[in-house]
Amino acid sequence: MAEFTLVAVDGVARSGTLRLTHGTVETPCFMPVGTGATVKGLTPSDLHASGAQIVLANDYHLWLRPGLRVLEAAGGLHRFMGWDGPILTDSGGFQIFSLEGRRTIDDDGVTFRSHLDGSEHRFTPESVLDFSRRIGVDIAMVLDVCTKLPATREQLERAVVLTTQWAKRSAERSNDGATAAFAIVQGGLDRGLRERSARELVELDFPGYAIGGLSVGETRDELYDTARFTAELLPPGKPRYLMGVGTVTDLIAAVDAGIDLFDCVYPTRCGRTGRAMTRDGHFNIFNARYADDFAPVDPTCECRVCGQFGRAYLAHLFRSQEMLGPRLLSEHNVAMLNQLMRDARAAIRTGNWNVLAQSLLGRTKQSV
Amino acid sequence: MAEFTLVAVDGVARSGTLRLTHGTVETPCFMPVGTGATVKGLTPSDLHASGAQIVLANDYHLWLRPGLRVLEAAGGLHRFMGWDGPILTDSGGFQIFSLEGRRTIDDDGVTFRSHLDGSEHRFTPESVLDFSRRIGVDIAMVLDVCTKLPATREQLERAVVLTTQWAKRSAERSNDGATAAFAIVQGGLDRGLRERSARELVELDFPGYAIGGLSVGETRDELYDTARFTAELLPPGKPRYLMGVGTVTDLIAAVDAGIDLFDCVYPTRCGRTGRAMTRDGHFNIFNARYADDFAPVDPTCECRVCGQFGRAYLAHLFRSQEMLGPRLLSEHNVAMLNQLMRDARAAIRTGNWNVLAQSLLGRTKQSV
Repeated sequence: MAEFTLVAVDGVARSGTLRLTHGTVETPCFMPVGTGATVKGLTPSDLHASGAQIVLANDYHLWLRPGLRVLEAAGGLHRFMGWDGPILTDSGGFQIFSLEGRRTIDDDGVTFRSHLDGSEHRFTPESVLDFSRRIGVDIAMVLDVCTKLPATREQLERAVVLTTQWAKRSAERSNDGATAAFAIVQGGLDRGLRERSARELVELDFPGYAIGGLSVGETRDELYDTARFTAELLPPGKPRYLMGVGTVTDLIAAVDAGIDLFDCVYPTRCGRTGRAMTRDGHFNIFNARYADDFAPVDPTCECRVCGQFGRAYLAHLFRSQEMLGPRLLSEHNVAMLNQLMRDARAAIRTGNWNVLAQSLLGRTKQSV
Repeated sequence: MAEFTLVAVDGVARSGTLRLTHGTVETPCFMPVGTGATVKGLTPSDLHASGAQIVLANDYHLWLRPGLRVLEAAGGLHRFMGWDGPILTDSGGFQIFSLEGRRTIDDDGVTFRSHLDGSEHRFTPESVLDFSRRIGVDIAMVLDVCTKLPATREQLERAVVLTTQWAKRSAERSNDGATAAFAIVQGGLDRGLRERSARELVELDFPGYAIGGLSVGETRDELYDTARFTAELLPPGKPRYLMGVGTVTDLIAAVDAGIDLFDCVYPTRCGRTGRAMTRDGHFNIFNARYADDFAPVDPTCECRVCGQFGRAYLAHLFRSQEMLGPRLLSEHNVAMLNQLMRDARAAIRTGNWNVLAQSLLGRTKQSV
């Protein structure tokens, strides 16, 4: 089930509600990444406290470890990881196509060797979708073909052709209704191919659409232009998901392009390495100036970490290689993006998106 | 301030309340170790949820990093680390005397080189006590001389003599009343020296006494015998703290010997390496059998981790080297010991300590 209701449109920016089997997601919404059944360092309770509405997991990683048998015996991914809200699984196509030299693709699917133990596995559109459904997620991304940029037109076209064929097979796969399959538009930076990919997938009438094949080597302007161009090709009544985007400026640009959903490892990866995200830009917590700076990481942030700890304490934890540091900064970074999206929703619903976006872009001195 | 009230005595086991500046501690009580201003992986909120009443920190570590200047600027250790309950600081004598070849001891104090950067520092009984008071802790352990076992009688005697001299200087140090100084009985396994050390320190009328110089190389029986022998030498109306003890069987033996307070890195160190503590013994979460075992870590445990996650999930996290694994298992292990002490208090207060102790020792098949 994935019922999308558009609540407000402000310029091209949109705000809506997405009803899923495990709850309702207010959009625009950032989805923290829990690749292997854990958003690194954070519990489900931390995620709820940070304002997370839905988390992302990855079929490729979960297929290899802990595997379908364990996840089914646990009663599904939700019970296994203790998260009761909606979950979206990426198929892992992106990860598999990154395994150069360790995967072979044919019209029917892709055979690859595990990055963990070299064991051989095969993904087809059907096997991946069945996996997502059997572990009980709310949204399953179909298996697609993702091409690293730069790529030749032939490579991009073959990716679009196969992606459509596989999406068609995914759409035809039997479905109990609990897990909604979303299709992924490919085509690189080629507008003709994006148009073709979007048209072919929209004809298949999926409950939601992602824009894939970006954040894979192109410039920021190319990313924004392609996202905006592609979003316009998608049906207004269906949710739109831009894959792999998660910095403050990227999120603002994406919301402004009419995107509803985003995911990225950026806030948690930054959290683990000491990069603090704020509305005024990022900073490195290891910088000497923070050793005796007792202000919260972000004085405008409402998260639990900013409410209880100062920069000096986090700096001390990181310098002492204490795992509490990565944990706390990850929670802050995720909470900060969730607050940004909450404010975006409120602005769009009151017709103030442009004011908020300009104000945020004016404050953000660095690319965060 | 350290006001101890004995509430109940059952055989030799005791239960009481210890009123400190930042709150009241019900004894017997296990104190989780937060050496460098963090109980590894856990927030103050986690510690409260686990039933922790007081945490331990270490002057030696805090002196070196973040240092007095930062801790004072933060408004003290409590505000720095966000823990509002009582804190006990060990002086770090144990750590310094472990720095063989990097420290020289004289009658006035000890000069040592930092394990972090080789910088030279000096601890005297006065400087360490002043440090603890300036960072605002509830209980400061005086600087003592701790001897690794086995040791000659001469080494042990010199440690006892200096420990008394230093304790006397500590007792005479001016005191605002907020931070209580506890003395530490030394003497190794030598009963004569233990008697002398206890007698000399008791004459100085400290508000509390620790039994030091154990858990440093002796056998379990030697530890238990010496703890029991030394505890009897201490005034019944003052709290007794056995340093460095934190396994289930050690805690039971120590409570049975009339000890009130304990600390150990054991539960958090085990938590980080995948060793789960339960009332029925410990187990290694990496063991293949736990990969599809969906029971809680300890089915009799009331902690948040056991309430929400199964062994299979923790096994998956550890196998995937996910930091959530060490965090969750640390919280469980600490909570499990805190529940054990809570049950010990209830049993002592109702005259059932012996029944509980025998039942616990009967269940614990392995030494945990």
